[in-house]
Amino acid sequence: MSKLLCDKDSGDAIIVKVGDTEIGSKKKVIISGPCAVEDYDTMISIATQLKLYGVNILRGGAFKPRTSPYDFQGLGKEGLEILKAVREEVNIPVSTEIMDTRDVEEALNYIDVIQIGSRNMYNYSLLKEVGKLKTPIILKRGISATINEWINAAEYILREGNENVILCERGIRTFETYTRNTLDLNAVAFVKTNYRLPIIVDPSHGTGLRELVHPMSLASIAAGADGLIIESHINPDLSISDANQTISINTLSDIINDIKRLN
Amino acid sequence: MSKLLCDKDSGDAIIVKVGDTEIGSKKKVIISGPCAVEDYDTMISIATQLKLYGVNILRGGAFKPRTSPYDFQGLGKEGLEILKAVREEVNIPVSTEIMDTRDVEEALNYIDVIQIGSRNMYNYSLLKEVGKLKTPIILKRGISATINEWINAAEYILREGNENVILCERGIRTFETYTRNTLDLNAVAFVKTNYRLPIIVDPSHGTGLRELVHPMSLASIAAGADGLIIESHINPDLSISDANQTISINTLSDIINDIKRLN
Amino acid sequence: MSKLLCDKDSGDAIIVKVGDTEIGSKKKVIISGPCAVEDYDTMISIATQLKLYGVNILRGGAFKPRTSPYDFQGLGKEGLEILKAVREEVNIPVSTEIMDTRDVEEALNYIDVIQIGSRNMYNYSLLKEVGKLKTPIILKRGISATINEWINAAEYILREGNENVILCERGIRTFETYTRNTLDLNAVAFVKTNYRLPIIVDPSHGTGLRELVHPMSLASIAAGADGLIIESHINPDLSISDANQTISINTLSDIINDIKRLN
Amino acid sequence: MSKLLCDKDSGDAIIVKVGDTEIGSKKKVIISGPCAVEDYDTMISIATQLKLYGVNILRGGAFKPRTSPYDFQGLGKEGLEILKAVREEVNIPVSTEIMDTRDVEEALNYIDVIQIGSRNMYNYSLLKEVGKLKTPIILKRGISATINEWINAAEYILREGNENVILCERGIRTFETYTRNTLDLNAVAFVKTNYRLPIIVDPSHGTGLRELVHPMSLASIAAGADGLIIESHINPDLSISDANQTISINTLSDIINDIKRLN
Repeated sequence: MSKLLCDKDSGDAIIVKVGDTEIGSKKKVIISGPCAVEDYDTMISIATQLKLYGVNILRGGAFKPRTSPYDFQGLGKEGLEILKAVREEVNIPVSTEIMDTRDVEEALNYIDVIQIGSRNMYNYSLLKEVGKLKTPIILKRGISATINEWINAAEYILREGNENVILCERGIRTFETYTRNTLDLNAVAFVKTNYRLPIIVDPSHGTGLRELVHPMSLASIAAGADGLIIESHINPDLSISDANQTISINTLSDIINDIKRLN
Repeated sequence: MSKLLCDKDSGDAIIVKVGDTEIGSKKKVIISGPCAVEDYDTMISIATQLKLYGVNILRGGAFKPRTSPYDFQGLGKEGLEILKAVREEVNIPVSTEIMDTRDVEEALNYIDVIQIGSRNMYNYSLLKEVGKLKTPIILKRGISATINEWINAAEYILREGNENVILCERGIRTFETYTRNTLDLNAVAFVKTNYRLPIIVDPSHGTGLRELVHPMSLASIAAGADGLIIESHINPDLSISDANQTISINTLSDIINDIKRLN
Repeated sequence: MSKLLCDKDSGDAIIVKVGDTEIGSKKKVIISGPCAVEDYDTMISIATQLKLYGVNILRGGAFKPRTSPYDFQGLGKEGLEILKAVREEVNIPVSTEIMDTRDVEEALNYIDVIQIGSRNMYNYSLLKEVGKLKTPIILKRGISATINEWINAAEYILREGNENVILCERGIRTFETYTRNTLDLNAVAFVKTNYRLPIIVDPSHGTGLRELVHPMSLASIAAGADGLIIESHINPDLSISDANQTISINTLSDIINDIKRLN
Repeated sequence: MSKLLCDKDSGDAIIVKVGDTEIGSKKKVIISGPCAVEDYDTMISIATQLKLYGVNILRGGAFKPRTSPYDFQGLGKEGLEILKAVREEVNIPVSTEIMDTRDVEEALNYIDVIQIGSRNMYNYSLLKEVGKLKTPIILKRGISATINEWINAAEYILREGNENVILCERGIRTFETYTRNTLDLNAVAFVKTNYRLPIIVDPSHGTGLRELVHPMSLASIAAGADGLIIESHINPDLSISDANQTISINTLSDIINDIKRLN
C-alpha cells in the first residue's frame, strides 16, 4: 500500500470543529436525534431536550435511503428546511445524510455536517464532490467494507482537499441475526492506532436493539471512540422508522452521564 | 413483503433486447471485453475477434471505480468516445458502467447498455435516474447485498418505468480468501424460480482467478443463467486492471463452444 | 505453506472405491437417502427405489448432530442396525455420520463409508482416528471453513495413512438468509484444479430449498464435481428432519438423467 | 424456541466458583497465561508473576488444535503434568483445553477448569461428556456460531447436570482481514441481557493483534463481560504460538489496573 494522507504519520491527528464542538479532541462528542425528520414540532421538542442534556449536534434524516422503493423516503427539501429552522431556534448544529451529488451544493445552506451513509461509502463521485468542500463529513463504514476500503474512501475526500472527515463505525454485516449488524469495535481501536482521523460509533444501527445501545455506547468509548451518534426520540415507539433501535431521551441522558464517569 | 413488479406473477418473463440480441430468451448471451477501455487500437482488435467468435455485446470500462483514489480511474469521456467508434466500426453493441447521476444523459449518446456496478447497487439516486430511461440496465449485485436488497434495487428501476433490467450475479463477499469473491449460483437458481427478470453471471469477478472462469461459466449456465459477462483480452497479462481474472480470447471461444453443447 | 499429501503434484489423482463404485473417476456418483434413518420399512422402501434409479450409495443418519439438545438425536445403535440390514437386503453400500471417536471402531461392522459432518471438520481427534482406517471417509466442509482449513483437515486423515478421502462441499455460512447456506462451487473448481482428492457436492444442505436442488445439482457437475449427495425420501413432506430440502425420488431420477446428458 | 435452562428466567444468575474466585459476580475475573504450555521453568516463572499482579486463574494449552497436522500439537500429557506441578507450587487454579471425550476423565486429575475450544463448540459428544461433571467449563463460541447455536451448546452441558458453564466470546469470522477475528461485543451485551450464564471475553484471539488487546479488554468490560482470558508471556516474542497476539506481563498489569478503575 502506498502512503495515505489518512496515515498517522502523514500529519497531526485531525480534530474536526463544528461550532464550539471539537471531534477528535479529549471530550467525547454526542450526536443524537430521530432517524427521520418527521415534523417541525416534534423536531423542536426533541432538539430542545437533547441540547439540555448536553448533546452537541442534532441529527435527523431528510433523505432516507430505504431498501424498498415503496417505503417512506424522507421529507427531502422540506426536511432540510425543518432542520435549518430548528438549528436557528434551538441554536444547535445539525447533520443530515446527502445521497446525490446534485444535492450537495444546496445542502450547504441548511446543515453543518454532511453524513455519507453506509450505502454510499463506495459512491466515489459523491466522495469527490464533498471533498471539494470544507464542511465536516461523517463517513459511515459500508455495510461490508473492509477497514482498508473505508480508509481509502476517506482518502478520496482528503485528497480533494477536505480534511474534515469523521469516520463512523456502524456495524458490519455478518451471519449473526440476533443483532441487526455486528458492531466492530476492533475497527475503532485499529483506526485510533493507525490513522489520524477521528472516529465515532453508531450503536443504534450497530446493534439494532434498543436495550443494547447503553452498554455498547460505553464499550465504544472504552475502545477509544471520540464520540457517539445515537438515534433518540421523545417517544421511541412512535418513530417513523427504526423504532426498535431508538432510545428515549432519558436513556440517552443516562448514557451521557456514564460516559463522563469513564473519561 | 409487498408485491413487487419483479415478482414472477406480476407479468410475463422480461426479455431485454439489445439490437438483435435477446437476453432472457432461450439462447445464452455472451458479453465480453477488457476490464478497462485502454486505447482505440487494442479495443478494435479485441472487438473484431470477439464478434467473430460469437460474442453478442462488447464491454469495457470508461469510468473505473477503484478502492484507492491513486489507482487508474478510467479514461472517462475519452473512453466513451472509443467505445462509440468501435461500436460503429465493428457493428457490435457496447456496454459500460455509469457511476454518477450527472453522466447518465450524456452516456446515451455513446453506449447501448448501462452497467450499474456492485458498489452502486444501493445508490438509489442513480437507480431512479436510469429508471427514467428505456435503455437496458445491467444491475450487478452489491458485494454483500442480500437477494432481497438486490431485487428491491431492481424494483427502484422498474418502478420508474424502465423494465429493461438484467440482473448480474458477480460474487459475494465471504470469509474465503482463496477466491476473490464467492460466486453465489444459488442466487441464480433462486432468481429464476421466483422473479421475472433475466439474470447473467460474471465469473471473472465471481472467482478472481483465470483458471476458474471456464468451469464456473459452465456451472452458471447449468444453474439457469441467461448469459455471461466475462473479462477477456487479446493479451490478458497486459490488461491495465484485473489481469489475474482476465482470460484469452481462445479460452473464451472454448467456453462459448462448451455452452452451446450444454444448451 | 508446506507441501501437502493432498497437493496435486504429490501423487496420482485419488480414486476412492466403494464396492464397484469409483469416486473420482469419470462416472459421476450419486449418494442419496433420507436425512435420518427412521425405521426399517421406510428405509427398505427408499433403498429399493434408489437402487433401481441408479443411486450408488445409500445415506441415512443414525447419529444426528442437532443445534438443540431437545431435538431428535437419531436412533443411534438401532439406526446402524437398520442400515446394515438394508445393505444386505438391497445389496447397496451404506454411509452414515460418526461424531465420536469412541464410536468409530464399532461402526465398521455396520457401514461402508464414514461421513465426518460439517460440525466436526475441526475435530482433529476424530480425524486422526478415522485416519487409521482404510474405510472411505466423506469429509464435509466446515460451515465456515476456508478451503485451506478444509484441505488441512483432509491432510490430518491422509497423514495417518488413510488416502480414501472424499471432500464434500455443502454450502458455507454467509449473510444471505433466503437460502440456508451459500453453495460455494468456486471451491469445487478450485479443489479440482489444485488437489488430488475427489470432491462431491451436497445441494440439499447447500441450498436448504427443495426447488433449488435440481438446478444446483447440474451446476455442481458442470463445475467439475465427481458426484452428489442428495437428501431424498419416498414422501419428502414426512421426513423427520430437513423436510424443506428433501426431494422426491422422482425428482432425483430426473436429476440423474440430466446428469448423464451433461457427461 | 422452547424454554432453555440458560434463559434468564429459568433461575438465578449462575455464579461459577473456582477456588476462591467467583465468575459472574461483581468482581471481574482475569485468566491469563501463554498460548501453549512450553516447559516447567517458563510456566513457573509466568505463573508466579501473574499471581503477583492479581490474575485469578492460569491458562496454558496442553493439547493444541492446529489447522495443519504438521504444526506443534502441544505437549499433551506432559503439559498436563506441568500444569499440575505449577498449580501446586504457585497455588493458582489452572485451566486447559480438552478436545477428546477420551481425555476428559483423566484431565480431572490435573486441572481446575476445562476449556472447550472454538473448533469443538459443535462437538456434541464432548459437550455431553463434560456435562456429566461438576468441573467448571469455559465454552468458547464457535468461529462462526450464531448466539443461538452457542447458547444451545451450553444447554447441552446444563441439561446433563453441569451448571458451571462460562461462555467465552473470542471473535467471529467475517470478511475483515486486518484483524484475525471480529470481536463481537454485541454478543456479550446480548447474553447479559437474556441469559443467566457468566460470560468472559478473549481479546487475544478476538483481535489477533497485540496492540489492540488493551483497548478491547476495556471495551469488553464496559460491554458487561464478567472477565477476560488473555494470552500473556514473560517474553511474548518467544511464544511458541500466537506470538502476534500475546502481550507482556507489564501490559497485562496495566489492563488489570485500568479495569479496576472502570468497576
